[in-house]
Amino acid sequence: MAITSEQKADIAALRAQRAETMRPVVPALEEVLYEPIPVLDHGFVRVVDYMGDDAAIVQAARVSYGRGTRQSRDDAGLINYLMRHRHTTPFEMCEIKYHVKLPIFVARQWIRHRTANVNEYSARYSILDREYYIPEPAQLGAQSDDNRQGRGEVLDGEEAAWVLSLLRDDAERCHRDYESMLNSGGDPARKGLARELARMNLTLATYTQWYWKIDLHNLFHFLGLRADPHAQYEIRVYAEAMLDTVKRWVPLACEAFLEHRLGAVTLSRSALRVVRMMLAGDAVDQTSSGLSKREWRELMAALEREG
Amino acid sequence: MAITSEQKADIAALRAQRAETMRPVVPALEEVLYEPIPVLDHGFVRVVDYMGDDAAIVQAARVSYGRGTRQSRDDAGLINYLMRHRHTTPFEMCEIKYHVKLPIFVARQWIRHRTANVNEYSARYSILDREYYIPEPAQLGAQSDDNRQGRGEVLDGEEAAWVLSLLRDDAERCHRDYESMLNSGGDPARKGLARELARMNLTLATYTQWYWKIDLHNLFHFLGLRADPHAQYEIRVYAEAMLDTVKRWVPLACEAFLEHRLGAVTLSRSALRVVRMMLAGDAVDQTSSGLSKREWRELMAALEREG
Amino acid sequence: MAITSEQKADIAALRAQRAETMRPVVPALEEVLYEPIPVLDHGFVRVVDYMGDDAAIVQAARVSYGRGTRQSRDDAGLINYLMRHRHTTPFEMCEIKYHVKLPIFVARQWIRHRTANVNEYSARYSILDREYYIPEPAQLGAQSDDNRQGRGEVLDGEEAAWVLSLLRDDAERCHRDYESMLNSGGDPARKGLARELARMNLTLATYTQWYWKIDLHNLFHFLGLRADPHAQYEIRVYAEAMLDTVKRWVPLACEAFLEHRLGAVTLSRSALRVVRMMLAGDAVDQTSSGLSKREWRELMAALEREG
Amino acid sequence: MAITSEQKADIAALRAQRAETMRPVVPALEEVLYEPIPVLDHGFVRVVDYMGDDAAIVQAARVSYGRGTRQSRDDAGLINYLMRHRHTTPFEMCEIKYHVKLPIFVARQWIRHRTANVNEYSARYSILDREYYIPEPAQLGAQSDDNRQGRGEVLDGEEAAWVLSLLRDDAERCHRDYESMLNSGGDPARKGLARELARMNLTLATYTQWYWKIDLHNLFHFLGLRADPHAQYEIRVYAEAMLDTVKRWVPLACEAFLEHRLGAVTLSRSALRVVRMMLAGDAVDQTSSGLSKREWRELMAALEREG
Repeated sequence: MAITSEQKADIAALRAQRAETMRPVVPALEEVLYEPIPVLDHGFVRVVDYMGDDAAIVQAARVSYGRGTRQSRDDAGLINYLMRHRHTTPFEMCEIKYHVKLPIFVARQWIRHRTANVNEYSARYSILDREYYIPEPAQLGAQSDDNRQGRGEVLDGEEAAWVLSLLRDDAERCHRDYESMLNSGGDPARKGLARELARMNLTLATYTQWYWKIDLHNLFHFLGLRADPHAQYEIRVYAEAMLDTVKRWVPLACEAFLEHRLGAVTLSRSALRVVRMMLAGDAVDQTSSGLSKREWRELMAALEREG
Repeated sequence: MAITSEQKADIAALRAQRAETMRPVVPALEEVLYEPIPVLDHGFVRVVDYMGDDAAIVQAARVSYGRGTRQSRDDAGLINYLMRHRHTTPFEMCEIKYHVKLPIFVARQWIRHRTANVNEYSARYSILDREYYIPEPAQLGAQSDDNRQGRGEVLDGEEAAWVLSLLRDDAERCHRDYESMLNSGGDPARKGLARELARMNLTLATYTQWYWKIDLHNLFHFLGLRADPHAQYEIRVYAEAMLDTVKRWVPLACEAFLEHRLGAVTLSRSALRVVRMMLAGDAVDQTSSGLSKREWRELMAALEREG
Repeated sequence: MAITSEQKADIAALRAQRAETMRPVVPALEEVLYEPIPVLDHGFVRVVDYMGDDAAIVQAARVSYGRGTRQSRDDAGLINYLMRHRHTTPFEMCEIKYHVKLPIFVARQWIRHRTANVNEYSARYSILDREYYIPEPAQLGAQSDDNRQGRGEVLDGEEAAWVLSLLRDDAERCHRDYESMLNSGGDPARKGLARELARMNLTLATYTQWYWKIDLHNLFHFLGLRADPHAQYEIRVYAEAMLDTVKRWVPLACEAFLEHRLGAVTLSRSALRVVRMMLAGDAVDQTSSGLSKREWRELMAALEREG
Repeated sequence: MAITSEQKADIAALRAQRAETMRPVVPALEEVLYEPIPVLDHGFVRVVDYMGDDAAIVQAARVSYGRGTRQSRDDAGLINYLMRHRHTTPFEMCEIKYHVKLPIFVARQWIRHRTANVNEYSARYSILDREYYIPEPAQLGAQSDDNRQGRGEVLDGEEAAWVLSLLRDDAERCHRDYESMLNSGGDPARKGLARELARMNLTLATYTQWYWKIDLHNLFHFLGLRADPHAQYEIRVYAEAMLDTVKRWVPLACEAFLEHRLGAVTLSRSALRVVRMMLAGDAVDQTSSGLSKREWRELMAALEREG
């Protein structure tokens, strides 16, 4: 993670400011407020603002005038109930704002979630730094054989080294040529290409950054997809870093999310029938189950049974 | 406005709490935080939380690490520029949450704005209080002759008194029968109709309440439509009360909104041609303008010219 | 359902029109196009337009140039896969438009789904007909004892008759007074109250109507909540009528929805552990399960086990 | 534009199909249905489906049962009125679906519009073709001096040639290395990097493609920003191609859009005051106007006055 000393000073200045407020404050989240949490080789996530807490969810669900008697046992029960029955609107009453630095190919996957507010650093307006993502060798997975959109075993040393050198050389050259086209050296014999055009020479490994603001319900939806083991590693590590901040922020809601979403399993109508038969001691196998081979395999894995 | 002493105590308790935060704090808004601002005969608006301030808009527009040098002159210029050129995403980085009590017919108009988060008091779950809107006599407009969806001159005393008694009697009777159907008196000979059904006996004048959370860009869109003189009076008074809170919260953005939206006028392609001709001293009247009579009348009014 | 002869003629005219198109056409849906499907005592749902079909989902998932070889077996497999893995965007590529007539209290529940396009009949602009919902006696449930937002056993004959007379009288009187205030009889001695005000005298049982347009993914979300047995009867009957039209329109997607959503059950992390223990023959009861009594009861019901 | 013969056959097959429908059909749009309209060097836009027409806007605004008497004069007047007064919901009742091929840096700008449905070709799942955008020499603008995010005069021949060779060489090399890393040649000594990783070596000039579906109101919003002269050339040409298809589809709504949006000018509160003074013959210049220099310059340009 590359933070300049000037940026560090900006962050320190923010963390030094203190003011009184009548709004709810979450000390555990304030502890990490503004602090960049390193992700990948040059990226980060940092919380830059938040609104609400666990009690605000309860307050909205009850449309109440105050913040209740703060009996956290009751609050936990209600929050659990809301999560379980997909009463999603009270979770929308909490909001969080992140500043994220991430490779462009990750940003392109991330932006598909349309329910957030986004301000991205503009390469029409400014020049992007020479920073690009180079994976750790342990992350250089080969194309998966059985999953068309996943990765399988890790590349061997020689192939890995060759791949890394290609990635590095191409990203480096493309960025150097980008700067040349911009005439960032100030050669008086050249005009310099417009930034909005020159940027197209950068590779998708280049880092960008944005402010990203979202309500808690939609954040859980994002984390449910992106903190999942099937998500691409490079976005999952961001989701995991964010999940840690959510635990600090709304511990009760986060626990309900882990219980009823991230750790939960949905049984289809047919899978439910299979489970009922198994519990009743009736014989059932993939052929008689009505499930496809893949569905059967996934169901047995979820139930920790031999297929 | 009917606030019970219990509710007052809840609000006082919230206003008594103080905590330190590193987040931006807006003292002018904290002054009115949680306080109900009366609207109509029993309604109110109160700010229950907020995120961000004018500087947060600038910070997001620049995707910066800190809060800048706080040169408010520069901030005003940038915010003005963003508003003028409809760069709306930085305004989405501020968020506000209101608790609103309002008649159901106003709530139905309000809810058409789909870009907010809403938690409404549930009449399936709870019983609605006996509170309904009765207009001031000065608001009892007759149907407008030239505007199919507006009101014109005020009803005369006798007709007004008769209308008010009808409104009052019907609302009163409907609510009394609602309570009877619910068997709220606890008559052991009756079961009491389910709340989810009984509620249909209430009139649209009945008050409901909700938590309503929205970002600043979408709030400006709402206020642009609902604080406009053409909006129905009963929703406009809510918009005006909210506009006052926005002035406290983000004074620079609010000023830019008044300058470039609420106080602005859009000239159509044809109207622009008319203005150019008038400035050039060329003769133009409605017939030759290409504008309809109504468009011509509205243009002359905007320009403060005799048609 | 009250359709005037004029409206019937309008519908017949639409159904008489035929034109050639190169777009996908779904004959089974065209059979009921424009036809009102009666719901409740005066309501209806009718499909007024649609875009796409099952093949369009496949086409979008593959971002293909044509419509594939139309091997419906493969299409079914892919659609099932997309539904199971919550790849929702291909379902967003189909769109349907309904014209719905419904009581206002149902409309208020319905409108919470913010992802649709809506045009509602305007009571500022026009006068609402004297039509209101009166439940069938079999629907007059008492307040449920164990579900704060549901209904339990049906009211007895006498209480039911009394409730129905209250509902009918209040709705009737309120509508009659509404018309009087509007001076719809044209009494020259009165001005007539503006429509935007008079409407507040109507009860929530009054029928309104709207055009409602939504994509298939969001429609499934709506149907998943509103065709569910826990939904209020008065909105569920609309959802069920719409589900029938969806079966005609996109039979493969609808079957996948029934299999993986409407007929599916989600096991929480703890519930999954319970099922694994039961399958392994380990003893587990509510106390040791980590589930609340209600969660345990619901799990046993889903598994068709005695608690 | 590179369309393979197989893709051409797919398109021809779609255009050869004919079926009867009772839905509204727009012959002028059917003429170009499925046909790729070339944009930039390898891109295209093609309409793949649509729902509704001008009459559907009117029908929704009136919440009517039929399609009216089709008096197009009245329809034009109503549509004009709706556009002028920003009654946007009737325009949301029309929907269109495009298949677009476009450079990734354009796609990143485009996707900021969050109100559309999108299915993008997946580079996790499939391999991207070796196609990248190389600008025409006439488009190689230098960085603008007075607009931080625009381009100014065109680069001279030598600098232009050098820039083009850099763009071409880097895109070519990056794509070749991408294919090598994927081991698309099938070298048995190598495993081949996973597609989801290899794609990061591509430059932002690489073409991608997607299905993009949007309602007419939001499409007008998109076109208002992207068909504007201030939009970047590379996205503006897509917007212009789409505007032509909208003219075919909903000619009345499109004309209203050109009149009240694309060709319109918004006068701020201060600018309106200036125009009133000028019309009244009062002296006013930039200093006394309350406008910034830039605002004054833009106002004078809009009014076709010397500043």
